Amino acid sequence: MIIVLKRDATQDDIDHVVEKIKVTGLAVHISKGKERTIIGVIGDEALLSSIPLEALPGVENVMPILKPYKLVSREFRKENTVIEVRGVRIGDAEVQVIAGPCSVESRDSLIECARQVQASGARILRGGAFKPRTSPYDFQGLGVDGLKFLSEARKATGMPIVSELMDPRDTETFAEYVDIIQIGARNMQNFRLLTEVGKAKKPVLLKRGLSATIKEFLMSAEYIAAQGNSRIILCERGIRTFETSTRNTLDLSAVPVLKEETHLPVFVDPSHSAGRWALVAPLARAAVAVGADGLMIEVHPDPENALCDGAQSLKPSKFAALMDELRKVAAAVGRSC
Amino acid sequence: MIIVLKRDATQDDIDHVVEKIKVTGLAVHISKGKERTIIGVIGDEALLSSIPLEALPGVENVMPILKPYKLVSREFRKENTVIEVRGVRIGDAEVQVIAGPCSVESRDSLIECARQVQASGARILRGGAFKPRTSPYDFQGLGVDGLKFLSEARKATGMPIVSELMDPRDTETFAEYVDIIQIGARNMQNFRLLTEVGKAKKPVLLKRGLSATIKEFLMSAEYIAAQGNSRIILCERGIRTFETSTRNTLDLSAVPVLKEETHLPVFVDPSHSAGRWALVAPLARAAVAVGADGLMIEVHPDPENALCDGAQSLKPSKFAALMDELRKVAAAVGRSC
Amino acid sequence: MIIVLKRDATQDDIDHVVEKIKVTGLAVHISKGKERTIIGVIGDEALLSSIPLEALPGVENVMPILKPYKLVSREFRKENTVIEVRGVRIGDAEVQVIAGPCSVESRDSLIECARQVQASGARILRGGAFKPRTSPYDFQGLGVDGLKFLSEARKATGMPIVSELMDPRDTETFAEYVDIIQIGARNMQNFRLLTEVGKAKKPVLLKRGLSATIKEFLMSAEYIAAQGNSRIILCERGIRTFETSTRNTLDLSAVPVLKEETHLPVFVDPSHSAGRWALVAPLARAAVAVGADGLMIEVHPDPENALCDGAQSLKPSKFAALMDELRKVAAAVGRSC
Amino acid sequence: MIIVLKRDATQDDIDHVVEKIKVTGLAVHISKGKERTIIGVIGDEALLSSIPLEALPGVENVMPILKPYKLVSREFRKENTVIEVRGVRIGDAEVQVIAGPCSVESRDSLIECARQVQASGARILRGGAFKPRTSPYDFQGLGVDGLKFLSEARKATGMPIVSELMDPRDTETFAEYVDIIQIGARNMQNFRLLTEVGKAKKPVLLKRGLSATIKEFLMSAEYIAAQGNSRIILCERGIRTFETSTRNTLDLSAVPVLKEETHLPVFVDPSHSAGRWALVAPLARAAVAVGADGLMIEVHPDPENALCDGAQSLKPSKFAALMDELRKVAAAVGRSC
Repeated sequence: MIIVLKRDATQDDIDHVVEKIKVTGLAVHISKGKERTIIGVIGDEALLSSIPLEALPGVENVMPILKPYKLVSREFRKENTVIEVRGVRIGDAEVQVIAGPCSVESRDSLIECARQVQASGARILRGGAFKPRTSPYDFQGLGVDGLKFLSEARKATGMPIVSELMDPRDTETFAEYVDIIQIGARNMQNFRLLTEVGKAKKPVLLKRGLSATIKEFLMSAEYIAAQGNSRIILCERGIRTFETSTRNTLDLSAVPVLKEETHLPVFVDPSHSAGRWALVAPLARAAVAVGADGLMIEVHPDPENALCDGAQSLKPSKFAALMDELRKVAAAVGRSC
Repeated sequence: MIIVLKRDATQDDIDHVVEKIKVTGLAVHISKGKERTIIGVIGDEALLSSIPLEALPGVENVMPILKPYKLVSREFRKENTVIEVRGVRIGDAEVQVIAGPCSVESRDSLIECARQVQASGARILRGGAFKPRTSPYDFQGLGVDGLKFLSEARKATGMPIVSELMDPRDTETFAEYVDIIQIGARNMQNFRLLTEVGKAKKPVLLKRGLSATIKEFLMSAEYIAAQGNSRIILCERGIRTFETSTRNTLDLSAVPVLKEETHLPVFVDPSHSAGRWALVAPLARAAVAVGADGLMIEVHPDPENALCDGAQSLKPSKFAALMDELRKVAAAVGRSC
Repeated sequence: MIIVLKRDATQDDIDHVVEKIKVTGLAVHISKGKERTIIGVIGDEALLSSIPLEALPGVENVMPILKPYKLVSREFRKENTVIEVRGVRIGDAEVQVIAGPCSVESRDSLIECARQVQASGARILRGGAFKPRTSPYDFQGLGVDGLKFLSEARKATGMPIVSELMDPRDTETFAEYVDIIQIGARNMQNFRLLTEVGKAKKPVLLKRGLSATIKEFLMSAEYIAAQGNSRIILCERGIRTFETSTRNTLDLSAVPVLKEETHLPVFVDPSHSAGRWALVAPLARAAVAVGADGLMIEVHPDPENALCDGAQSLKPSKFAALMDELRKVAAAVGRSC
Repeated sequence: MIIVLKRDATQDDIDHVVEKIKVTGLAVHISKGKERTIIGVIGDEALLSSIPLEALPGVENVMPILKPYKLVSREFRKENTVIEVRGVRIGDAEVQVIAGPCSVESRDSLIECARQVQASGARILRGGAFKPRTSPYDFQGLGVDGLKFLSEARKATGMPIVSELMDPRDTETFAEYVDIIQIGARNMQNFRLLTEVGKAKKPVLLKRGLSATIKEFLMSAEYIAAQGNSRIILCERGIRTFETSTRNTLDLSAVPVLKEETHLPVFVDPSHSAGRWALVAPLARAAVAVGADGLMIEVHPDPENALCDGAQSLKPSKFAALMDELRKVAAAVGRSC
């Protein structure tokens, strides 16, 4: 931690800051320049988290040196984490594609959709059972029935399944039915939910919040890891900006930044960020080219009659064509798909 | 709803859109211009929510005419909602100030703080018992003990109390102890939590999410109201922008916009948006001048030793001075404080 | 400057960074902690601006200690700069209001408007002669004729006049006609234009760019000051965010932050940020309450027939009512208006 | 144009709006629903641009139907515009790479750099002669000498050259020396400069402003086209968001959106958005995969000693390796590079 003092800070101000820090047992190094005095603190910065250093008299600025996340950091673990789920290796050389409908609507349509996306090369099935809808008057999902249909689709196809958990009270039910528990963007800082899935010992797919910095995204992963569960897949899904021609702005730069900062696999969801299907294919290709470990794509047998997010869902035939394109791009960057 | 077709939309495209809409029972009006054909839909737009109109062939743009929120809208109820809590009238002529520490730390310090802020003119006591902290390694609050200390402070001072609920499993406990249940910015779209507090029949203080539009903010209030609970206080607390000299950017324009759109009381929290105490006073004055119905301000008897957010907490003496200023500004805009 | 090295930086990396810095003649202080090595550089950081320290091997992060602006900083000059223009003192105890039409439309309507706003208490007249319009097909202003009409309005009323300069080729003409040269938000980083007005020795009203940080805003002021002209008025006019219910988001927190950082007067333009007249009055009141030294408000005798920005222009009667309100708020915060 | 009236709009309000519109000669269609009255205006919406419809009594919302840009729109011209510069075809099947140093530093180093990037496959040479620097104290470029060195490098290699114009007074000089005139992000809405390059009859490379929407970006291109010059290359270079781990957020979704909306070629600059060289390669690959027609990349023979933006410049050897990667990705998406 570096503490920069104001130009007119007094010796009393400096002594007061130093005293505050010394209570924590940390060592201090003072450097008096012509323009500013700087206090360097050596050691575990977390010990300082409860001291409002910025508010102490004479303090101009406080700059942390160390990163606030540990377990999920690349420093903590140099090699990539590979998560294996029913034989599918996530975070390895193969780019894995998760596909399926926004929400589970019926047993038969789900199994049909699962077979179609599997035939095209998807390895994991997605489907919403509990849906976070902006309006209380919109379709909220089938609930536990949705989870049951998903597990039937798994039985029919062998594909592992992922679905979004919204409520800590449903954690056990999810742990029973699904292979990967998804935490949605709106719950990225629902710390109680993060703690619960941390305890659940199931792989977690954690979506980036709409206004979450990469640092905050990794801190939310740290919440899960701090409970002993490091099988976490990070998923970039677009951030909120001033641009309105797409629903959100897909931040593909986040992928190489995350690959530097963490050992966890990084996925991209081009469907939600774009908000309309015509943009899904180019963004999916770009995600593979930028280095994503996987994709999450909405596919619906009949988007016009989807109960949710039909505008951004691909038809199975378009998904099949996209998978062909993705295989070529993956090969071009030395991976498979 | 207005549906704008692409310039090259065919008659088949138009017929297809019309057919989709007619299934819902809504009436359609077609207007063919030189450049574009436009389809107007007359009636309840909610019926169209499950049709992905944007994805239909030939459709360029879909523009809703009606607002998606109803119960919380000014159209639904013209006069201001006034919420009375233990004799304090919220949303009326008097600007109400909620004050207290970021987190409850001990019984005695809380009661001391409550007495101090009450003496200066605060009418409601705040204090965090369960704290949403970005880092899993930071102080997480005293939990139920915090709620108990709050209710003791209420007993000692007569002030109603407000505290933040993070987990639907704690709703009953909160309903038992607190007078107003706070939903924090990070949980503004935690729809399960909104549904629970909607059922709880306690006044709710709902904070705006960091990247929530005003429309989304009102939709979250609608979630609560849809359960039968319309005693909702909205609280602007800063949004996330590119500017880093303040923690968040306080969107004071939101106050008059909300007062136009909704009958609910609108508060402002200048402490969290600013992130440092020196900015709290000018922003609090501006909030009263812009038309806020109340303020929420962090006060701590000893900010340097606060376990949480000390940098943005006012000392009781500074809070007393601020209340004097606010009384003058409130009078200047025809209110009291 | 503080340079943080990566955990695995080698001694060669450290030596290389040190060598680079020493070439500039600056002194270096190395601090080796358990987790990180840190290099502190003592002295004028501007000397390092051409060294890409972030790109050197082993470097993780580079943190400047000093501020990049000098002449405009509060450190350079502790007391407030007061700019006197034809007897009007800007930056002093009186909150000064600039008012007038978005664009000058005719000699007579301008003089009429000037007399009306002056009668209500405005001290400076605004009016656009050259208009920066988003569309090439919109009204672009009367040009030099507009400047001539402004100077006639000054003659008629005695009010100093301000108008926006868009092209360095027009600088001399502006210096001849107007009292204060305005640089618009879209030209805040038009560095050639800044250099020209720096040479022009006329007071400058510099508007904050839509996506400019406060630091960049001050750097643009520094461009002007570096040419020897420190008579600069800063004007917050809204920043671009995700929120669409107002045209821009007025960043009122910027006012107290700027008052800390710089000795220059700080104004607020509530008309452009709001985009509609009904929000102008509450935002103007808030701007005075937050500590602005002045306001810039669009007034038009007949907004419905204005050639530009009619939606955000106040009628003279509404402006008169607003001035009454502002006088009360100014008095409440110890100023006049 | 669709005009939505407030629920409580009176017949007088409706009549007043209709009267205003009829003055322009446009036809009006009124639709009275249960909840709202809607007025549709048929014909050229530009005629309405000077009427502040939003401010008329009873008006709730005004929604344009047509796009404000014409000449640059895909509707105006269905086939892609291909711009040929000294034999290099821009906007055609081949993805064209512009490379070179941030700023021209000397004749010899520039020619050396030009030869290196040409050998690796770049087809156009970039180099800054006039530099827009945030600080007035930073290196501002060699000026006309820089342009002369660029033209010597063109003579030596045959590569067409591009350089940034900042001042309308320099337009003729640029037209004389360079093949493509660049307008930088900070000048995207410098309308006088746009008008000048519109008249200059040279191809223009127009960078997107940091906070410009795609619509505004296209309106700036329209300014140039309105002067008779449609040889415009659009360049996405990152937008300003809350994320700070990259200098700007590269908005790759903008590429397919622009390809839908306009017939102009679309380039991507991964160097400026990323701000550090390690991110340039993945983002360049993604740009090709998403459908960009070309790239603009900073290359410097010795980044550590670059006078400008060394942190984001690639060494020639890394650039050569990147070109190999880009050729593979281009082939995977059916293009060459």
